[in-house]
Amino acid sequence: MIEPFDDNYFMNRALKEAENAFAKGEIPIGAVIVVENKIIARAHNLTETLNDVTAHAEMQAITAASDYLGGKYLKKCTLYVTVEPCQMCAGALFWSQIDRIVYGARDEQRGCINMGTKLHPKTKMEGGILAKEASELLKRFFIEKRNLN
Amino acid sequence: MIEPFDDNYFMNRALKEAENAFAKGEIPIGAVIVVENKIIARAHNLTETLNDVTAHAEMQAITAASDYLGGKYLKKCTLYVTVEPCQMCAGALFWSQIDRIVYGARDEQRGCINMGTKLHPKTKMEGGILAKEASELLKRFFIEKRNLN
Repeated sequence: MIEPFDDNYFMNRALKEAENAFAKGEIPIGAVIVVENKIIARAHNLTETLNDVTAHAEMQAITAASDYLGGKYLKKCTLYVTVEPCQMCAGALFWSQIDRIVYGARDEQRGCINMGTKLHPKTKMEGGILAKEASELLKRFFIEKRNLN
Repeated sequence: MIEPFDDNYFMNRALKEAENAFAKGEIPIGAVIVVENKIIARAHNLTETLNDVTAHAEMQAITAASDYLGGKYLKKCTLYVTVEPCQMCAGALFWSQIDRIVYGARDEQRGCINMGTKLHPKTKMEGGILAKEASELLKRFFIEKRNLN
C-alpha cells in the first residue's frame, strides 16, 4: 500500500518552514504538528524578528495547535521539527503530553537529549528523519551569515 | 541605610501577580522582571485562560521584558517568581542569559533543580524569598478547587 502521509512527508513540510525562517535571516528551524494526518500548526523560528528567545518554532507550533484543538493537551498529536528540541521546547512538550516527537538533525550541544530534559512518560521521541537536509540547511545558513559579516 | 527596593519588595509584587492568577482560577504563580530597581515586566500564569501550556508567568515576563528592552538578552535583569521555575521556563531563562533568578517556594516535583535543567553559566539562582506566602497561596488554591469539585 502506498502511504502518502508518512514521516518524510511531514518532515518535508517542517523543512519548508525552516526555509521560511532562513529567508528572514532566522536560524532555519521549522516545525509542524499533525493529528490524524492533518497539519494543525506550522511555525518557524522567529527569535530575531520578535526579539524573543521564547519564539522557537516548537513553542509557536504548540500554542497554535492548542488554539486549534481548544485544549492545552496535544494528545494524539505528533510534532515534526527539523532539529532536536532544546530544554525549553522539550519542557513545553512535557506539559503538553504530546504523543510523539519526530526530529531531523541531532543537536549534541543544546538539544534535550544531552541536556537531560525529561519528557512526559506518554511521549515517544525519535530522530533522524531528513536529518541530512536539516543540518545542511543550518550549515548553509551559518556559512552565508559568516560571509556577510 | 534603608533599602526600599529589596528582594522582599519585588517578590511581594510577584505575589500580587500570583493573586491575580488565583482570582482567574489559574494556578497562582506570578513573576516580575526587574532592571536597576525598575519593574519592566509583570505576568501571571494563564495556562487555563489561554489553553496553552506555554503561558507560564515566567514565559510571558521574558517576552514582555525583551519587548521593553528591544533585545532578546535579559542582561542586568532579575526575575522574581513565586515558585521555582519548571524545565520549560528554566530553559527559556537559559537562552535569555538573565543575570539572576529569585524564586519563592521550591517545586520538588516539577522544578528545574530536581529535573536537572541547566542554567546559563552567567545566571545566579537563589530561592526561599517569601516562600511561605507563595506556598500558602498554592495550598489555598488547591483546597478551594477540591471543594468546588
